[in-house]
Amino acid sequence: MSKFLAERLVPFEAYVPGEQPQDRKYVKLNTNESPFPPSPYAERLARQAAGGLNLYCDPECRVLTSVAAESFGVSSEEMIFTNGSDEVLNFAFLAFCDDASPAVFPDITYGFYKVFAGLNGVPYREIPLTEEYRVEVRDYFDAKGTIFLANPNAPTGVAITKAEIESILQKNPDHVVVIDEAYVDFGGESALPLIGKYENLLVTRTFSKSYSLAGGRLGIGFACPALIADLKKIKYSTNPYNVNSMTAAAGIGALTDREYFLRNMAIIKENRARMTASLEAMGFTVLPSSANFIFAKCADISGEVIYKELKKKGVLVRYFDKDRLRDFVRISVGSAEETDALLRAVKQIKEERA
Amino acid sequence: MSKFLAERLVPFEAYVPGEQPQDRKYVKLNTNESPFPPSPYAERLARQAAGGLNLYCDPECRVLTSVAAESFGVSSEEMIFTNGSDEVLNFAFLAFCDDASPAVFPDITYGFYKVFAGLNGVPYREIPLTEEYRVEVRDYFDAKGTIFLANPNAPTGVAITKAEIESILQKNPDHVVVIDEAYVDFGGESALPLIGKYENLLVTRTFSKSYSLAGGRLGIGFACPALIADLKKIKYSTNPYNVNSMTAAAGIGALTDREYFLRNMAIIKENRARMTASLEAMGFTVLPSSANFIFAKCADISGEVIYKELKKKGVLVRYFDKDRLRDFVRISVGSAEETDALLRAVKQIKEERA
Repeated sequence: MSKFLAERLVPFEAYVPGEQPQDRKYVKLNTNESPFPPSPYAERLARQAAGGLNLYCDPECRVLTSVAAESFGVSSEEMIFTNGSDEVLNFAFLAFCDDASPAVFPDITYGFYKVFAGLNGVPYREIPLTEEYRVEVRDYFDAKGTIFLANPNAPTGVAITKAEIESILQKNPDHVVVIDEAYVDFGGESALPLIGKYENLLVTRTFSKSYSLAGGRLGIGFACPALIADLKKIKYSTNPYNVNSMTAAAGIGALTDREYFLRNMAIIKENRARMTASLEAMGFTVLPSSANFIFAKCADISGEVIYKELKKKGVLVRYFDKDRLRDFVRISVGSAEETDALLRAVKQIKEERA
Repeated sequence: MSKFLAERLVPFEAYVPGEQPQDRKYVKLNTNESPFPPSPYAERLARQAAGGLNLYCDPECRVLTSVAAESFGVSSEEMIFTNGSDEVLNFAFLAFCDDASPAVFPDITYGFYKVFAGLNGVPYREIPLTEEYRVEVRDYFDAKGTIFLANPNAPTGVAITKAEIESILQKNPDHVVVIDEAYVDFGGESALPLIGKYENLLVTRTFSKSYSLAGGRLGIGFACPALIADLKKIKYSTNPYNVNSMTAAAGIGALTDREYFLRNMAIIKENRARMTASLEAMGFTVLPSSANFIFAKCADISGEVIYKELKKKGVLVRYFDKDRLRDFVRISVGSAEETDALLRAVKQIKEERA
């Protein structure tokens, strides 16, 4: 830290992304990436865009917008594209939160919400998940703040229904409700059909998981045109050209190749079911997941030990050293081979400690 | 605007980027892009990266960092990479400006500084350029704030020397001095050699202009390790994966292909000299430019008319409807053919009005 850092930022702590160790080749099940490469069509369009990089990208992402409008069944004025969905989430904290509308989110959820609040100097309130690690929707009625809910939630994978979201929207007409659908394609029920009905709804999506574009950085916000205009005001005041030409092109390809997307979703769900059943058979408790990861705890081995032993065996998963999470590890659902490797390694750990 | 927008942002106005009209094909000399495609090696590396996008990009940009350290003669701890240099500039406003250290910049400069200040709720003070549109360095001695100087300045193209920058650094030991070198490769004197000597210096660069990567979005901040750590705190609190894999790869290629870069710089300087001489011969006043654009005014035709008439003839330049700038147009220096087209169109306008 320098002596020049603004005083309000001195005590503030940044987000820590999942580790990316370079010391050896791991079975990487720690950052919820897709085990599948991007759609060949997405790759082709991105490659084509690389030749024209001397010209600025289109700040309005017009072609991508028109393809996405068709794909998601919304209008062009109901979308904003960002450099990953982290950016649109940060924009939402900046645009819709202040002392009069503090941020409200679960005590166990995407760790970045707290960081966004801190960075933007926004007060926040955490609402505990239930004993079963579920969002109790009634806790969010008349929440007196801007609500952020990951659905499915992270790192639990547990989802709420569209009807539950609708009840939260109705009970908070004077505040924005942000539904972060980073993982919804893996089995959650989307709030997108509610966009036209509620002026206080913002739905965010990412191309990092289900569209295999984590390294490309593309996110979307969906909302009524007035909310989108607010978010664009932020975008045009920080980085109008936030989505580069190659990434916009990759997004067009990924949305267009619907068959590839659906096949990958089916495989992930199949591997998730198998991983869940196998771990349960080995004495694990696995929360019901609608995401491309599972949150699992072993009856007799701590989350930290599972994490460390798996790492020794070349399998990376994510461990959170935090109350109520220490018993668990979060395991991304990978390919069939990665699932086999994970299950083999867990079995060995159990045997070594039997 | 929605009723949910935070109150402090309601009166605030966003940045307006240069127009990108789609109605016809223009000779585009309005946003200071490079007329040359990216280096073939940059394009090749970007294309190769498109296949691995399912994995997150490296938040530390390690390979790019090591190539850039070599290229710029700095250490790895003295750099941060961002999604264009607008992002590192915004980070600097956020990290180093507050009521105790307001932003200080010229009244005529990159229009985004005022927007960044507004967005981040930072007070700012503008210091007028001299009659000759120059930065008077003594005006920045003991400025009691965080100084932002584009060098060469925009939209004037006028540069100050490294010795002048050093005097500003010495006279402001308690505040950060940001030197925005977006255009320095076209003839300015860089402050980079001062990085190791002044803990209050931040130099920013972009790959958008001299490296032909405007559509790829890549910027760098150079400073002592403590300042870089502050900026990384902001990066890791907004968007750790801010530079996507393809763009990082393109940056590696662009830095490596030194010959291509040097050839392009030589051509732009040659075309700038020719454009300047020809416009002067037609009665224009052209400010001495060290950038890839010139700022020119005609003795008897207003900037607005020049801009509008050029647009009718298929040539886009930039006009600023602002005090002291209304007489001028800013013209990007393009290829030889684009320079010819611009000069032909100006000659016609002069003749039509003779």
